[in-house]
Amino acid sequence: VQQIKALGFDVFGTVVNWRDSVAREARAFFQAHGRPDVDPMLFAVDWRGLYQPAMDACRSGERPYVRLSTLHRENLEVMLDAVNFDRSTASEEELHDFTNAWERLDPWPDVVAGLTRLKRKYIIVPMSNGNISLMLKMSKRAGLPWDAIMGSETAGAYKPTREAYLNNVDILELKPAEVCMTAAHNNDLRAARSFGLSTAFILRATEHGPDQKTNLKAEEAWDYVSTSMEDLATKMGC
Amino acid sequence: VQQIKALGFDVFGTVVNWRDSVAREARAFFQAHGRPDVDPMLFAVDWRGLYQPAMDACRSGERPYVRLSTLHRENLEVMLDAVNFDRSTASEEELHDFTNAWERLDPWPDVVAGLTRLKRKYIIVPMSNGNISLMLKMSKRAGLPWDAIMGSETAGAYKPTREAYLNNVDILELKPAEVCMTAAHNNDLRAARSFGLSTAFILRATEHGPDQKTNLKAEEAWDYVSTSMEDLATKMGC
Repeated sequence: VQQIKALGFDVFGTVVNWRDSVAREARAFFQAHGRPDVDPMLFAVDWRGLYQPAMDACRSGERPYVRLSTLHRENLEVMLDAVNFDRSTASEEELHDFTNAWERLDPWPDVVAGLTRLKRKYIIVPMSNGNISLMLKMSKRAGLPWDAIMGSETAGAYKPTREAYLNNVDILELKPAEVCMTAAHNNDLRAARSFGLSTAFILRATEHGPDQKTNLKAEEAWDYVSTSMEDLATKMGC
Repeated sequence: VQQIKALGFDVFGTVVNWRDSVAREARAFFQAHGRPDVDPMLFAVDWRGLYQPAMDACRSGERPYVRLSTLHRENLEVMLDAVNFDRSTASEEELHDFTNAWERLDPWPDVVAGLTRLKRKYIIVPMSNGNISLMLKMSKRAGLPWDAIMGSETAGAYKPTREAYLNNVDILELKPAEVCMTAAHNNDLRAARSFGLSTAFILRATEHGPDQKTNLKAEEAWDYVSTSMEDLATKMGC
């Protein structure tokens, strides 16, 4: 697609493997606190499960925009209560650090090489629901070479609202079609396309583990359909 | 200073040499338009001179926050009228491109090496009055390795207002003293210190040319006083 000047990336799932990374952090936390009975993978998946409903209050306007790091902390407390973990046995510092598990997510193996290639020809920015500080620390740890950190906090809104996409297009001083939303999730691309953005799909067939049932293929004729970040770089001429 | 976790940089003057770069762009524009009589250096300096007054309306609240790229364009029109340049002889595309001269500023020679060293130990972000797109394109062209692009547009306010500093500290999820404002301008550091930030001075003795009269020394005992970005990196243990 000739006119694309910038790529905006979904991050959780598309760029980083949140499931294994958060499970690793949960395993360490529960072992340190004498609760090896808590299944760390299930804990990670259920914690992530609270993510979409938590943002709904902000999407509907019932609650003003609140950073994802704040929602992660609120959801952690819900999760700890759900596994009957006595929160008073952990210090505030330990709970804060566990919340920051979301800053310590490993990228998929093709990501750093693929982004580095794409960056030569295009502006590359995250367009994630994560807040700036969370994305910054994750990216610094993982070596993700973004040109800037954008997303829900620069837009002041969560995907898939119109504002989450178009406010960031406006901040980039570009036209919608000049920005290519890049994601492993068909619904993210569907929303982006409805607001005029270009679209690229990257297959992440194990984001949800070996039995994943969703997003196993491109459900529409997206502008690019790729199997990895490196494959996308090749298809985009980088 | 032990607690510093992030450095926020002033950019125009501290990181990039706006005067020579904008003069280069002005020279090309006026030669292309048959007006070699316009002094490009004087034009650059006078264009920059309209920068502070233009932000004042936003600082006072008289006008809502407007991106610097918009103010640059408004000021360009004032400047062209002032040199009796008939704006109808340039296309909209040419005027837009001339406005974007501010995206094509060269860094001082010590900057890329110094920032690269500082980035190993600290979070490094611009905290400039420039907007995100302007900073992004300038940084991509110049190879500035920021961890994120922050500044007036993330804060929604222009320095030296309280919000311009403290909103960005909040977005970084840090305490004011954990963020070190780094600038060649004593007034920027004075404001930052008054809001609790740490401070670093970098001498830029020729920002305003060979006859510079201001900011030739640190006017207070800033936390760091340095002669270049590389010198600062050394003093900060990088």
